[in-house]
Amino acid sequence: MDASRFRDLDVSPRILLGPGPSMVSPRVFRAMATPLIGHLDPDFIALMKEIQELLRYVFQTNNHLTIPISGTGSAGMEASLANFIEPGDDVLIAVNGYFGERLCDMASRYGANVDRIERAWGEVFEVDEIGKALGRKRYRLLAMVHAETSTGALQPHVKEIAEATHRHGALLVLDTVTSLGGVPVKIDEWGVDVAYSGTQKALSCPPGLSPITVSERAREVLRKRKTKVANWYLDLSLVEKYWGDERTYHHTAPITMNYALREALRIVAEEGLEKRFERHRSNAEMLWAGLEELGIPPMVPLEYRLPTLTTPKLPEGLDEAKVRRMLLNEYNIEIAGGFGPLKGKVWRIGLMGFSSRKENVLLLLSALKEVL
Amino acid sequence: MDASRFRDLDVSPRILLGPGPSMVSPRVFRAMATPLIGHLDPDFIALMKEIQELLRYVFQTNNHLTIPISGTGSAGMEASLANFIEPGDDVLIAVNGYFGERLCDMASRYGANVDRIERAWGEVFEVDEIGKALGRKRYRLLAMVHAETSTGALQPHVKEIAEATHRHGALLVLDTVTSLGGVPVKIDEWGVDVAYSGTQKALSCPPGLSPITVSERAREVLRKRKTKVANWYLDLSLVEKYWGDERTYHHTAPITMNYALREALRIVAEEGLEKRFERHRSNAEMLWAGLEELGIPPMVPLEYRLPTLTTPKLPEGLDEAKVRRMLLNEYNIEIAGGFGPLKGKVWRIGLMGFSSRKENVLLLLSALKEVL
Repeated sequence: MDASRFRDLDVSPRILLGPGPSMVSPRVFRAMATPLIGHLDPDFIALMKEIQELLRYVFQTNNHLTIPISGTGSAGMEASLANFIEPGDDVLIAVNGYFGERLCDMASRYGANVDRIERAWGEVFEVDEIGKALGRKRYRLLAMVHAETSTGALQPHVKEIAEATHRHGALLVLDTVTSLGGVPVKIDEWGVDVAYSGTQKALSCPPGLSPITVSERAREVLRKRKTKVANWYLDLSLVEKYWGDERTYHHTAPITMNYALREALRIVAEEGLEKRFERHRSNAEMLWAGLEELGIPPMVPLEYRLPTLTTPKLPEGLDEAKVRRMLLNEYNIEIAGGFGPLKGKVWRIGLMGFSSRKENVLLLLSALKEVL
Repeated sequence: MDASRFRDLDVSPRILLGPGPSMVSPRVFRAMATPLIGHLDPDFIALMKEIQELLRYVFQTNNHLTIPISGTGSAGMEASLANFIEPGDDVLIAVNGYFGERLCDMASRYGANVDRIERAWGEVFEVDEIGKALGRKRYRLLAMVHAETSTGALQPHVKEIAEATHRHGALLVLDTVTSLGGVPVKIDEWGVDVAYSGTQKALSCPPGLSPITVSERAREVLRKRKTKVANWYLDLSLVEKYWGDERTYHHTAPITMNYALREALRIVAEEGLEKRFERHRSNAEMLWAGLEELGIPPMVPLEYRLPTLTTPKLPEGLDEAKVRRMLLNEYNIEIAGGFGPLKGKVWRIGLMGFSSRKENVLLLLSALKEVL
């Protein structure tokens, strides 16, 4: 093999304003340059404890089982279903975008009978309709998306939905991939049983891990399973022994990614959640005002519009893919197109974590003005 | 939250001579400090192609479907079973150590009827006994471990075993976690259908990805499935569309880990596989001679002893855990204990990738002389 064909790694200096990954602080890269230690090293075990503590802070929970899953956000989604579904279980899934669809696909692979409650892409659910749907059957769980990355809608009333879910004896599983660290996620106050996220959005850590938190009620369901979890890698009854006091080997933890996550979470803690939410909100508002001016206002109504991800409605006939290519090729700016029913109709602009900065908003708006 | 409690990341400067992770070249850390780009960025797609090409080189294969799975080696193991097993399939698993046991556990979670063929931990299999076992039923696949990380044994005759497997109409799934990049792994010449590995052993990239390669025969089995793969994250029929020409979004690839893998593979290609195998072999031989002198000779007979991982037989009555603690605390050297039936009876000493250096062997032997 002629190794000289493979040159030094060199990629374009992108400004990442899509639905993720977001940009990463140089501090996180420095942490990743730390030499490796073993996954059972006392130093690593101390670091695991810190990561758990920091994750509990961002999830606003005291849940003991709060850990990073060793895969991207999709692996966290799968862990959140696989561990709590047994073949033949009835589950209810709220679908108002792509990630709701994915929840259905995954749940059915674990043998669940999936019932759907649906809203158009970009809408959110009322507590009442969720409550009514929960009454149809004895569901094992309700799964829904807090912040739909495919639409830019933020589901309100999670607390009331959790209450309804518990009244009907089910668990609430919540996708917080595009909300955690960017908008309030109050696991304990709301009563969410299982929540998962990704590292590469508002936490601004490279993709590769998926934070998850599990309530005592959900752990009880896990403990009472009659069948083994139908997924070895994501089996929380095994994973929790490695992250718990036993430190029993399960799989080799991604050491470097955990270094990165610790540093990214430390940055969140230093900024403070409240200030961080305010920053995400005010930069999003600046973006929204600019998009209105450009004649491509956000599709989602203000009351449930997501600050971390904005979906401007595009005029008919616009060659939106061409505009995105120009942004990328001429200005190194990444934004994303819509997909599914929103393909060609919206863009997806992310202002998440380290990407959520005034200068990025200004640059994007100026570049759009040039290009449109 | 008082963020000042979380100090700058600082870990002990370990010399990693256990079963993984191995040490990582500074070049790989530098590559990881490259700012992120999106997982659908043209720059990233170019990089994915390079990674695939480099992986084909280390696997010595032309298999089109040769990619890194977005999880550690265990995820690769699970992908190698989940995609090729349908509920009710008969599978044969060769068990001569911990990872063979794990294969049985995983396969049964996917609904396989698992038949085992067994050897004591530390032994390897004869072609004949495998052939005989394959004749018992119409098996969907035979899974076995090339280099058993729990014992230090290297399975010979893989080519003959593959031939027998194909004669019986089954697929051969091979675990190459502790062999790939350190000892010859000849996927095409041997006729292996599915092989997986980890990045954190002889490839000397941080843990977090799992290289996998799939033959055309195995892809045909995947295409002809009657049921969906019972694991969404590891479903190769979806994953291959992202890594193939369609570039269809599946999950967000761990960008930074892929930067790292590319650089680690580039280092392998620059050294050249043959030279790399020689280096692993000669450093292992230096270790073996030193261990003999110390009175703790390798447990595994020379003819199938693994150069990447050595298991010295310990004298009865030795407080082996104490010795390992002293190595770690006084000299920053990590080696590992045995487990299962080998607990307390052997150590596991890895000389893999960047850790496989003469100076590390000399240091370990000198430290052992001090401590024993």
